[in-house]
Amino acid sequence: MAETEPHPIIRMAELEIDPAQLDAYKAFLTEEIEASVRLEPGVLSLNAVSVKGDPAQIRIFEVYADQVAYEAHLKAPHFLKYKNGTAAMVRSLRLIEADPIVLRAKSAGGPPSQ
Amino acid sequence: MAETEPHPIIRMAELEIDPAQLDAYKAFLTEEIEASVRLEPGVLSLNAVSVKGDPAQIRIFEVYADQVAYEAHLKAPHFLKYKNGTAAMVRSLRLIEADPIVLRAKSAGGPPSQ
Repeated sequence: MAETEPHPIIRMAELEIDPAQLDAYKAFLTEEIEASVRLEPGVLSLNAVSVKGDPAQIRIFEVYADQVAYEAHLKAPHFLKYKNGTAAMVRSLRLIEADPIVLRAKSAGGPPSQ
Repeated sequence: MAETEPHPIIRMAELEIDPAQLDAYKAFLTEEIEASVRLEPGVLSLNAVSVKGDPAQIRIFEVYADQVAYEAHLKAPHFLKYKNGTAAMVRSLRLIEADPIVLRAKSAGGPPSQ
């Protein structure tokens, strides 16, 4: 990224979900992530996965443009819907703050630039 | 993602680096990630971060288009340069396989679609 870009904010969430409610949890999470990246300019990427062989272990890798964007996200209606709707499904949540070293992704839908 | 897209392969790497060699490690890693996303069509994104307050703890979130792309990456010259060049810098490496739930990112450089 160019040196003039703001410092991205990184969060990694490690969650354990009640297995009996895993499908419902994933539906809430999918709706929340799709809305966040579509509607919030400062939500750069949200990648949610489950650990292979242990599907109730969820990991979310989150990239926000800056601190203001992160704080705005926490107040967004689609985030609050997810947070409140899944509160009884989450057995544990660990939120890890991180500093970017290098973040690279293909342009959406495009071929490599070279 | 559309149902017709190939199943992405997700890897999460958790590394502890020798603190005395951390700057050299980051230089190898940055060169490797930039080359991989630029040159390999099947390397969709590589996001490397350090845990805040514990900078020798590195986390890399990796998305490949499919298994073939992942295996090709492991044989790419820029990956082998990184792997060999950093072997003596890495104190531990844990590689976690994961299944995608929902992967979303902004189009590079573009505004939100709505």
